[in-house]
Amino acid sequence: MTSSHVDVLIIGAGPAGVMAGNALASAGVNVRIIDKRPAKVMAGQADGIQPRTIEVFQSYGLAQSLLERGNQMHSLAFYNPRKDGKGVERTSRVPDISAPSARYRFEITIHQGEIESLFLDSMRTHGLEVERPIMPESIEVSNNEKELASKDSYPVKVVLKHLADATIDPTPNGAHTNDVEPALQASGSELETVYAKYVLGADGAHSFVRNSLGIELDGEHTDHVWGVVDCVPVTNFPDIRNRTAIHSDNGSCMIIPREGDKVRLYVQIAEELQVDEQGRKDRSLITPEKVMEMAKRSMQPFDLEFPDPPEWWTCYVIGQRVAKSFSIKERVFIAGDACHTHSPKAGQGMNASMNDSHNLSWKLAHVLRGWASAEILKTYEFERQKYARDLINFDKRLADLFSGKAVTPENAGGVTHQEFQGLLQSMGGFTSGIGIQYGQSLITDPTCQSLAPGLVIGQRFIPQVIIRVADTRPYEIQDLLVSDTKWKIVFFVGDPKEEKQRAVVNAVGEHLLSTESFTRRFTPKGLPKDAVFTLLTVSSTSKDDADYTDIHPGLRTHWSKAFTDDIAIDERAGGTAYSTYGINPASGAVVCCRPDGYVSFVCSMQDVTRGRLQEYFDTFMIRASA
Amino acid sequence: MTSSHVDVLIIGAGPAGVMAGNALASAGVNVRIIDKRPAKVMAGQADGIQPRTIEVFQSYGLAQSLLERGNQMHSLAFYNPRKDGKGVERTSRVPDISAPSARYRFEITIHQGEIESLFLDSMRTHGLEVERPIMPESIEVSNNEKELASKDSYPVKVVLKHLADATIDPTPNGAHTNDVEPALQASGSELETVYAKYVLGADGAHSFVRNSLGIELDGEHTDHVWGVVDCVPVTNFPDIRNRTAIHSDNGSCMIIPREGDKVRLYVQIAEELQVDEQGRKDRSLITPEKVMEMAKRSMQPFDLEFPDPPEWWTCYVIGQRVAKSFSIKERVFIAGDACHTHSPKAGQGMNASMNDSHNLSWKLAHVLRGWASAEILKTYEFERQKYARDLINFDKRLADLFSGKAVTPENAGGVTHQEFQGLLQSMGGFTSGIGIQYGQSLITDPTCQSLAPGLVIGQRFIPQVIIRVADTRPYEIQDLLVSDTKWKIVFFVGDPKEEKQRAVVNAVGEHLLSTESFTRRFTPKGLPKDAVFTLLTVSSTSKDDADYTDIHPGLRTHWSKAFTDDIAIDERAGGTAYSTYGINPASGAVVCCRPDGYVSFVCSMQDVTRGRLQEYFDTFMIRASA
Repeated sequence: MTSSHVDVLIIGAGPAGVMAGNALASAGVNVRIIDKRPAKVMAGQADGIQPRTIEVFQSYGLAQSLLERGNQMHSLAFYNPRKDGKGVERTSRVPDISAPSARYRFEITIHQGEIESLFLDSMRTHGLEVERPIMPESIEVSNNEKELASKDSYPVKVVLKHLADATIDPTPNGAHTNDVEPALQASGSELETVYAKYVLGADGAHSFVRNSLGIELDGEHTDHVWGVVDCVPVTNFPDIRNRTAIHSDNGSCMIIPREGDKVRLYVQIAEELQVDEQGRKDRSLITPEKVMEMAKRSMQPFDLEFPDPPEWWTCYVIGQRVAKSFSIKERVFIAGDACHTHSPKAGQGMNASMNDSHNLSWKLAHVLRGWASAEILKTYEFERQKYARDLINFDKRLADLFSGKAVTPENAGGVTHQEFQGLLQSMGGFTSGIGIQYGQSLITDPTCQSLAPGLVIGQRFIPQVIIRVADTRPYEIQDLLVSDTKWKIVFFVGDPKEEKQRAVVNAVGEHLLSTESFTRRFTPKGLPKDAVFTLLTVSSTSKDDADYTDIHPGLRTHWSKAFTDDIAIDERAGGTAYSTYGINPASGAVVCCRPDGYVSFVCSMQDVTRGRLQEYFDTFMIRASA
Repeated sequence: MTSSHVDVLIIGAGPAGVMAGNALASAGVNVRIIDKRPAKVMAGQADGIQPRTIEVFQSYGLAQSLLERGNQMHSLAFYNPRKDGKGVERTSRVPDISAPSARYRFEITIHQGEIESLFLDSMRTHGLEVERPIMPESIEVSNNEKELASKDSYPVKVVLKHLADATIDPTPNGAHTNDVEPALQASGSELETVYAKYVLGADGAHSFVRNSLGIELDGEHTDHVWGVVDCVPVTNFPDIRNRTAIHSDNGSCMIIPREGDKVRLYVQIAEELQVDEQGRKDRSLITPEKVMEMAKRSMQPFDLEFPDPPEWWTCYVIGQRVAKSFSIKERVFIAGDACHTHSPKAGQGMNASMNDSHNLSWKLAHVLRGWASAEILKTYEFERQKYARDLINFDKRLADLFSGKAVTPENAGGVTHQEFQGLLQSMGGFTSGIGIQYGQSLITDPTCQSLAPGLVIGQRFIPQVIIRVADTRPYEIQDLLVSDTKWKIVFFVGDPKEEKQRAVVNAVGEHLLSTESFTRRFTPKGLPKDAVFTLLTVSSTSKDDADYTDIHPGLRTHWSKAFTDDIAIDERAGGTAYSTYGINPASGAVVCCRPDGYVSFVCSMQDVTRGRLQEYFDTFMIRASA
C-alpha cells in the first residue's frame, strides 16, 4: 500500500469540491481532489445559478464563460385558474430577481456538467486535475491534542481505493441523487494511505465522510413527491422561456427554461405512494409519460406537445435536513449536499454548495500559510450552518405553498396568488444570495457600522461603478475585490484636493509607511508588500480635476489603485458609491473586505492613525516575526 | 514547380490580411493566407483600436479578448505653456471619444502582435493557418473577358516562393515600416504556382501586389519628422495614463498609454535633416536618447525619467498617400497600408486596414457562393477609397496643427488650444469610425430614409438595447447583427397587440410565407430558409404584456428572434430604440442591414407586401433557380 502527504484532500468533485479545488489550487495550496465517478455528470441534476453565485464566479474570473454558456431567467410568471374554469391564465409577470443591489438581475440555468467543466478547466491552468475514479475506504482524525494544535502535522488519515474499470449510472431515471445512491460498479482496486492536514468532504447527500465520522443530520423527509422532465416541448404557452409557477386545478407545475430550446418541468405527484421497508416511497409506478401528462393538464388551455422522449427525468421525495456539525475538530470539514439537502424548487442547491467552499477556502489558505490563527476555521460552521438552516426553513414554506392547491371558488382555503408571490418576493434577498449576512465573530466586527450604513457588515460588498483616476476608466468595485485570498482595504478618502482632508489623507499615508502599519505587522517577512493586503482608495473628487498623484504614496501602491466616485465618461454608470454606502465625503471611512468579498470591519480615517486596523487584525491574524 | 487552385489567396498576414482570412474562413470560403515574415510582429508598430473597430471585433465574437488584453483610453488631456513661462500646465481634459452613439466610448491600445494573435487563434478554429515564410514572385491577371466574367474561372496567376531559413528584422530601430522595407534574409526556396479566383494584396506600404500591377499612389511625403519611443517612465506627470497632447515652447509631444505601465511617446523632431539621393531624409542622427530628451523637455516642469532603455523606438517622416485604384478588374484587390499611408497620430492605421477587409470579405463570399452579382465588388473601391481620401485630408490638418508651435505671447501666430481641440472634437465621428458613411450605390439605397431618420443609410447600425420577448433578456441589437455574411432584415412592427397593427403584421407574415417572398427568391434551393436572411422583429409592446406568440409565424422563425423596445428588468438600458431611430411606433418600418453591419435600405411595412424588398435585392442579388 502506497502512502503520501498532502495539505488538503478534497473528496468529491461536484460543485462544492471543484469550487474548493479551484480556489485552493489558484492560491498555490498543496491540494488533491478525488472523485469516485469515472467522469463528470452528463445530464440532469441541479442547474440554477443565483445572482450572488454569479458574482462569486466573476471574482474568480469565471463569470464570462458562465454568461456565454447559460440560459438567463429575468422574469417570473404566475399562472392561476381562470374564472370560467377553462384552465389557467397569466396573473402577473414580475422580475425574477427583486434584490435591487444585485449586480446580475437574473438567474442562470446551465447543466451541472458545464459548471464542473468551467472549474476543471480553470483548475488545470493551476496544475490541478481531478483524480478518478477513487473512493475513500476509511477516514480517521487523530486524537492527539498536540498534533491537532500543530500547524505542521498531518492529523487526518484517509485510505483511498483507486478503482479500475469503474462504471456509474450518473443519475438513474426515477432516482434523485439526493435520495438514492447511484450504483457504482468497479473491478480491481489499489489502496493508498493519505496523510492530510485538512480534509474536505464534498461527497454529496450520502457523504461517506459525514457517515464515517458519525455526523448526524437534523430534519426529515416530507410527503411531497415531485416528478421532473428535461424536454424540448412544442407549445403555444407564451411564458415557456420564463421561470413560471402554475397553480392549476389539475396540480402545480414549475417551468425552468434551460440552454437552447430545452425546458425543465417540475410537477407535483398527487397520488399516494406505497412505503417500502426502509420507509422510502415506492416510485416505480411513476413514469416520464405520467409526468409529461400532468404538465400538459396543468397548462390547459395551452397546447403542450413532446415530439421527443425526455432527455432526462426523475422523481423525488423532498428531504429537508442539515448536518448537526460541519466539521470534526476543524481538521475535517463537510460542504454542499453533505451538509444540507432540500428541494430543488428554490434553486439553491448548487449555490449553497459552492458558497460553502468559497467561504472555507480562503480560511484554509490563511491558516496553512501561517497568516491567521486556526481559530478562524470555526467561523465556517458558524456562518454556513446558520445559512443552511435558514434555507431549509424557507424551503419548507415554499414547498408547502407550492404543493397546496390554488384558491378557487370550490377551494376557498387554497393558496392565494398573493401568498405565493409574496413569499417569493419577500425572500428575494435570501434566494438571490445577495442578502446573506454572516453574524458577529472573530472576523466580523460590526462596531462602527454607522460610518458606512449602506455597506452592511457581514454582507457581501455592494457593487458600484467607480472611476480609476489615472485613466478615467470605469471599474465595477467588485472586480477589484477578487478572490485572490487577499484582504482588500478600501480607503474612502474624501477629496484630497481640499486642504483639511489632504492633511488627513497624508497622515494615514505616513502611518502606513511607518513600522506601526498593520500591513507590515501582518505581512510575513520576505513576501511582497501587497501579498496579504490590497489597498484601494476611492476619493470624492471630480474626475476632471482628480490626479492620482494627489494620493499620498503610503496609500497608493500603484497608479492603478486610486479611484474616484464620479459618473463615467460614457455617463452610463458611476458617481453613487458614497451615497449608496452612506459614507460622508467630508470625512470618509475605511472598509475592510474579506478575501471572499464580505464586509467585515469599518473604521474612520482617523482610526487608522490610532491603530484601529492593527487591533482588528490582531484578534485573528498572526504577527510577522521581526 | 507545383501548382494549385484556390478561391481566394490573401498575400500578407498583417491586420488587413488576418481580418480577411478570419472572415472568409469562418464563412467557409476556400482561402489561403501567406506571409513572408517567419513570425508575427513582436514589438512596436500600430496599436490603436477605434470604437467602430471594437464594434466590428464584437461582431466576429472577438471583442471580449480585445477588452481583456488592451489598455483603454477614455480621456484626452491637453497641456499648453504656462503664462509664467515655466513649462506646461493642463488646459483641459475631455472625453477621448465624443461620438455619442458609440457603443464603446474609448479607444484601445494594444500591441499589433496581440491583435494578430486574436485573429490567428480564431482562424485556426475555422481550419485556416497562415503559411509562412512565403513571398509572391509574380502576379498576373488574365485579359480574357470570358474568363473574367465567369464565376468558375481562376483568372489570377500568382507564383509563390516558399522560403527556407528566413529571418527578418520586424521593425528595425530608426526605420518605420511605412517608409523603409524591412530587411528579409532567406536561403533556399521552392516555387509554387497558384491559380486563384480572387487575390487580396494586404502586403503593406511597399505592396508587391500594388507595385507589380502598376497601381500608383496619389500624394507625397511631408516635412514632418517624428520620433517615437515605447517606454516605462517614472514620472509625476498626472496624465501619463491618458492620451495627452502637449504643445510646449520646447516642441510637441503626444502621450499614448499602453498595456501595463508602458507608454508610447511621440515627439516632433525640430531639426533640419539632410536629404539623400532618393529624396529621403537622413535620420541616422536621431537616437532614442534624443527622442526621450525632447519628451522630457516638453513635459517640464514635471519630472520624467527612463530607468530602462526603450523597448522599441523609431523615427519617421509622414507620408500621406492613397492608391489611385483599389482593384484590378475586381479580381485582385489591395487593402490596408497597400492602399493608404498616413501619420500614426490620428490612430487610424490598423483600423482603416481592418475595416477595408471587413468591407470586402462578405462581398467576396456572396459572389463566390453565387448569391450576388460580381458587380457588388465595385462598391469596395467606391466605399473605401473615399474613406481613405477623407482620412488623408484629416491627417494633413491634424499633422499641420500638431507640428505647429503653440500660441504664446512671443508667438501670437501659433496654434491655439481652441483650434487643436476644435479639430479633434469636430472630427470625433470620423476618427472614432462611427460616423463613416458609404454613399449611394448598387447596394445602398437612401430613398426612404425619412422612415427611420435616426438610422442613417450608409452608416453602421446604431447600438440600442432591446428586450427579447420570450424571456425578457436584454440584448444589444448590434449583437444580433453579427458578421456571419447574412443580411439582417429588422422589422419594426409596432404593437401587434393593437388590432390595426396586428393586421399589418399578419399581412407581412403571410407575404413572407408566400412564394413571392424575397427570402425565397434569393435563398438558393437546398439551403436552410435562413441561410441568406435573418429576420428579426422589434415591437413596441410593453415587456409585461408582450408575447412572442403575437408575432405571425412568417415573421418569427424562432422564439429567440422576437424583441421589443422596452426598458430592461434591471432598468439599466433599453426602451429608446424607436425614438433613437426616429421610427413611428404606430406604423413601424423595415430596415435592411448589410452583412458588415451597415444600414443599406429602409421601407415601410406595407412596402413589404408590395414587393419593395424583392425590388431592392433584385438589383444585385441573384434569383434562386426554380
